[in-house]
Amino acid sequence: MISVSEALQLIEKHAQFNAIKVKPIIKTMGLVLAEDVISAIHMPPFKQSSMDGYAFAHSDSDCYTVVGEIQAGSARNLQLNQGEAVRIFTGARVPDSADTVIMQEHVQRQGNQLNIEILPNKYANVRPIGEQINAGEIALTKGVELNEAAIGFLASIGATRVKVYKRPKVSILITGNELQQSGDQLEDGQVYESNSITLKMALKRLGINKVNTAMVGDDLAQTTEAIKKCIAQSDVVLISGGISVGDYDFVKQALEANGVSEVFYKVNQRPGKPLWFGVKDKTKVFALPGNPASSLSCFYIYVLPLLKAQLGHRDCHLPSAEAFAADDIDNKSGKTLFLKGMVENEQATLLSGQASSMLKSFAVCNAILVIPSHVTFIKKGEKITYLKL
Amino acid sequence: MISVSEALQLIEKHAQFNAIKVKPIIKTMGLVLAEDVISAIHMPPFKQSSMDGYAFAHSDSDCYTVVGEIQAGSARNLQLNQGEAVRIFTGARVPDSADTVIMQEHVQRQGNQLNIEILPNKYANVRPIGEQINAGEIALTKGVELNEAAIGFLASIGATRVKVYKRPKVSILITGNELQQSGDQLEDGQVYESNSITLKMALKRLGINKVNTAMVGDDLAQTTEAIKKCIAQSDVVLISGGISVGDYDFVKQALEANGVSEVFYKVNQRPGKPLWFGVKDKTKVFALPGNPASSLSCFYIYVLPLLKAQLGHRDCHLPSAEAFAADDIDNKSGKTLFLKGMVENEQATLLSGQASSMLKSFAVCNAILVIPSHVTFIKKGEKITYLKL
Repeated sequence: MISVSEALQLIEKHAQFNAIKVKPIIKTMGLVLAEDVISAIHMPPFKQSSMDGYAFAHSDSDCYTVVGEIQAGSARNLQLNQGEAVRIFTGARVPDSADTVIMQEHVQRQGNQLNIEILPNKYANVRPIGEQINAGEIALTKGVELNEAAIGFLASIGATRVKVYKRPKVSILITGNELQQSGDQLEDGQVYESNSITLKMALKRLGINKVNTAMVGDDLAQTTEAIKKCIAQSDVVLISGGISVGDYDFVKQALEANGVSEVFYKVNQRPGKPLWFGVKDKTKVFALPGNPASSLSCFYIYVLPLLKAQLGHRDCHLPSAEAFAADDIDNKSGKTLFLKGMVENEQATLLSGQASSMLKSFAVCNAILVIPSHVTFIKKGEKITYLKL
Repeated sequence: MISVSEALQLIEKHAQFNAIKVKPIIKTMGLVLAEDVISAIHMPPFKQSSMDGYAFAHSDSDCYTVVGEIQAGSARNLQLNQGEAVRIFTGARVPDSADTVIMQEHVQRQGNQLNIEILPNKYANVRPIGEQINAGEIALTKGVELNEAAIGFLASIGATRVKVYKRPKVSILITGNELQQSGDQLEDGQVYESNSITLKMALKRLGINKVNTAMVGDDLAQTTEAIKKCIAQSDVVLISGGISVGDYDFVKQALEANGVSEVFYKVNQRPGKPLWFGVKDKTKVFALPGNPASSLSCFYIYVLPLLKAQLGHRDCHLPSAEAFAADDIDNKSGKTLFLKGMVENEQATLLSGQASSMLKSFAVCNAILVIPSHVTFIKKGEKITYLKL
């Protein structure tokens, strides 16, 4: 049995970037750039007015003749002579012969006669060519996560396709004779299967929408065959259940039969002790405990960081912070505890229903409180580390 | 011109819950329950073993005869007589005649002879019927946001469909003669249109994937017609550009021509002063400034809270927190400033490129620093409020 930090290090060591793919920017939300994006244009591409007003060549004069107008979008490059100004609008191209734009609120106009009331500084209200970025400069660097602003920025410099790390293909294999599909009638001894939908939804949050799901009973041959198929079609395989020490837990044997190399088995934690992690070629395999809360806890602590690292993210773990324990917390187990909690106003409250079979507390918590294995007691009011959900 | 807080109050006042719809749980990620969900079953539905081991009726004896086994999923309800035990596995139904399960690690077994080495407490390792929830009890209350754990929990109690607030239909209308579609050649005076993709991606984050997008030039008749179509097919309309005071800004007139009632126009803020908000019947209309950073800033501060309120969320605004200013910040404008910043280790650093035309700083910031209109100066090291992105 290894410690939580040893398990995390082993996973980090085995993480590899996913394949790189050129994608249209509209398909890249949440993905990470696999190379720097160089701007092909100056932005703005021309001297641009940032106001509705009048463009002119700056001088001491407070009187100009308006000789025309330039709308946004017009290519017009009017030659202004001394004493001439041009009506101009926000976003429009400022003529080469002008250097300054005065707001329309700061002039008096009568016919074509323009009187300046508050003379702006030279260059005022004109965005110079390349003010935001020049052609040939790096727009966004490799490793940046593409959010709405980044994608919009790429669009604004005319970048339509970028290189990103692909989303991984993930398979979920659910094992267990006792599991009934949701919607069907429960027979005595059966419970509804929920881990596949929980994991699918957690993957969806990472933008991973294409997920194969399969179910097998507690049978070695079937489990071996199902794992084989999952590995053939996936970058990451998540197996649920069948990894403990019961006579009908066949997952470990089935993984060995498929030549998946064990990296670790069993972590000194609660919930989720019987976590198994292994690799076959480029495919990573997690065998997660079947108890619903253990499964999801292991997903957050171990699977999520692997997926995020392979997607190219720099911060791969759930964000952590500190709060004050609202109750005394005992830890006689010698294990690291991951407890469902609610953190409000820096007070961390333990929720009821911590058993590894119980999802309800996970459904309404906003934090996982982390009690390290060597800490036997936390007094109310002491600082405690938590992971934000 | 109204203040930021007045604008927010007016939006809140006009927010109405979206229509309620029954949806399969797999389609509800991120949505909010519109009524309490009552569990139809006890969970667990039967007395359930939480260990691999042996079930028996607790007594002082340390010697039992193993008379059979019960696998997970089996309906078998073995009648145990005194001195008898049954091999049992995690998740399996504990027979009515047993009350306790002993871990297999705490026994010695020879043939059918079982010797107990460490006697557990009565009821140990047995999950009572309804331990997590009983039939008829509330599983999740109205107003809960459905995340992976909540959806998994619903699946575990056999709930396949739930009532949620629907996602709104959103239209985006982009105005501006100067805008060229990304991918086409820029002519002199043109810039690439980016607000539609920025807004679309921001909506995607809320699970709003079906968005109509239209583009019109700076023309009153076309703008009026386009707004009419948007209103007819949408719960929320986002218009970009054309809302300032230039001669070719037709959006305000076109909104009036469509009978959209103005709730407010112009907010005392930078960026985003010329923000317009109005309603027609149940449709909410935002006319956002055309400058890319202003548009996105107004989306985060005003549009997002409206959408979230209508989706049934309780916390509708970007989460806020405090940090220490890493630089002096001037505010001679008398306006509320929303500045792109980076907060690390409670230090809030202002990014360069704050102009309302610039998206780059938005692409790499993690916070919007909020400087209230009445604050003229913040000294390095002073506390500052920020919104987390």
